[in-house]
Amino acid sequence: MKKLMNSPDTLLTESLRGFSAAHSGLVTVRLDPMFVTRADAPRKGKVALVSGGGSGHEPMHAGFVGMGMLDAACPGQVFTSPTPDQIVAAIEAVDGGAGVLLIVKNYAGDVMNFEMAAEIAEGAVETVLTNDDVAVEASTHSQGRRGVAATVIVEKIVGAAAERGDDLAALKALGEAVNAGSGTMGVALTSCTVPAVGRPTFDLAEDEMEMGIGIHGEPGRRRVAMMTADAIAKEIVGAVVEDVKLAKGEEVLLLVNGMGGTPLLELYGLYDAALRTCGDHGVAVARSLVGNYCTSLDMAGASITLTRLDGEKAALWDAPVHTAAMRW
Amino acid sequence: MKKLMNSPDTLLTESLRGFSAAHSGLVTVRLDPMFVTRADAPRKGKVALVSGGGSGHEPMHAGFVGMGMLDAACPGQVFTSPTPDQIVAAIEAVDGGAGVLLIVKNYAGDVMNFEMAAEIAEGAVETVLTNDDVAVEASTHSQGRRGVAATVIVEKIVGAAAERGDDLAALKALGEAVNAGSGTMGVALTSCTVPAVGRPTFDLAEDEMEMGIGIHGEPGRRRVAMMTADAIAKEIVGAVVEDVKLAKGEEVLLLVNGMGGTPLLELYGLYDAALRTCGDHGVAVARSLVGNYCTSLDMAGASITLTRLDGEKAALWDAPVHTAAMRW
Repeated sequence: MKKLMNSPDTLLTESLRGFSAAHSGLVTVRLDPMFVTRADAPRKGKVALVSGGGSGHEPMHAGFVGMGMLDAACPGQVFTSPTPDQIVAAIEAVDGGAGVLLIVKNYAGDVMNFEMAAEIAEGAVETVLTNDDVAVEASTHSQGRRGVAATVIVEKIVGAAAERGDDLAALKALGEAVNAGSGTMGVALTSCTVPAVGRPTFDLAEDEMEMGIGIHGEPGRRRVAMMTADAIAKEIVGAVVEDVKLAKGEEVLLLVNGMGGTPLLELYGLYDAALRTCGDHGVAVARSLVGNYCTSLDMAGASITLTRLDGEKAALWDAPVHTAAMRW
Repeated sequence: MKKLMNSPDTLLTESLRGFSAAHSGLVTVRLDPMFVTRADAPRKGKVALVSGGGSGHEPMHAGFVGMGMLDAACPGQVFTSPTPDQIVAAIEAVDGGAGVLLIVKNYAGDVMNFEMAAEIAEGAVETVLTNDDVAVEASTHSQGRRGVAATVIVEKIVGAAAERGDDLAALKALGEAVNAGSGTMGVALTSCTVPAVGRPTFDLAEDEMEMGIGIHGEPGRRRVAMMTADAIAKEIVGAVVEDVKLAKGEEVLLLVNGMGGTPLLELYGLYDAALRTCGDHGVAVARSLVGNYCTSLDMAGASITLTRLDGEKAALWDAPVHTAAMRW
């Protein structure tokens, strides 16, 4: 295993220290317990959004802390849930008196620890669970579907609504609606390598890929021979359109998300294929995002997400955001 | 070789088509000859900035087309210079009557083709050559030093000055000053794989890295045993500080740039190491950038750039920019 690091034991702390220095003024990073908040937290009278999960998915979630998105993020060790004390400390640091909404990807460890934190923390705390991965109905890491790249879209849209002053109940309902209107599926061309493990999580032959991969390297639907970008887009977009029950003429956000080891040249090519496939289904792509947002360490591969943009969702997507990884 | 594509022959066109669709309203993409311009080009009375080079370094350069940065970018095939007719067409499309400044990385093919285009094109055309790579004095691809990641910084700072109305001579002088005040060196942990070739450009053992790598996989200073992030930062920052003759107390921009296959978790860790090393040299890091900006396809690795921020350079760096890959 070769990684740009001093040791697996110090990588996360050093990375967060670097993140803190590179984005000082925008975020405040605490190392014990570990969490990242907006530099201007707490925001009085605003519902605070808190997310988190295992590290290794950067820029998710710390890269989405800032105006118009998250108030705090709690990074666990690589692919390991943050602990309840981290989450409680983050909640307390950003609670502005209007309640706290937790945005949690549906993995057993995350669900348990965020739930525990919600019970311990004082004040009103609600939770939105994301489970947009249509690949498998249950996995080695979760009961029910996994939460993956649509989490970024939930955080952006709900973040915009929180910024304009929506209350806790409305934000919870909005987050659940965005999640319900979203579907994602991914492919892996290579495995990721967890720093502390030092060898690839799984093996793929030189002519194979994993269709429906999870963001921790969990198995997907099946191991298949390498497919073209068009065939990958066709299978994924087809599965998502069916799952989300997108009707002809409906508007969507199309996210082509890199897993960390795939260059932009390929991601934009896959986006082109996904866009054409959406056209074949009569689905109108009204907003787009292409890049590395919900990654799996150094895995080569990508996921495709469609999110239904009904109601105010497009306007909330367009609303200003100022974070390390998303800004407009 | 596994890549998200339909075929090596169509990858670039499909990727540009995807880029065009994902950023419609911001850029206009022409496919024959191939170039990308600001959607609002030409801007009357403004000096137009045109860059380009082989593809495979995304987001450079098309990702930097937009307000406050480039007016046009000409992508060649992967690791292949754009042709003079592409460059001439781009120049003519963006020339707003105040002249055109070409920003060219110092590679033999690019230098020759941009020179030829400058001769063919009508109107005032000047050139800034970037050659910030301190690793080697000459390479397999260039006479003299290679132009690498500081090109991004030249494009941003000169782009801001062009936006406020500086004239052609002033912009050329500014670009040359930014380049002269910049130094970069990179490391590769893995080779890139050129799609049309289908196999890695070079081989690296599981415990080796290449110090001083070029962005096309050209050899660097030496093949060495894998080093820690601290040791890498120490060697690179030391080489750059010496080369650029940075004195104690001087302010710099610190760019930690991913080569395409290295995740943000590691890049921020390397940034932390580079920042500490700058401190050891008494150099003050006043601005920072961390991410994939000047890549080498799917290569794992990173480069570190320091740019002296004297005069107005920090203010020009801070000026608004609205492109696909850089926005504030």
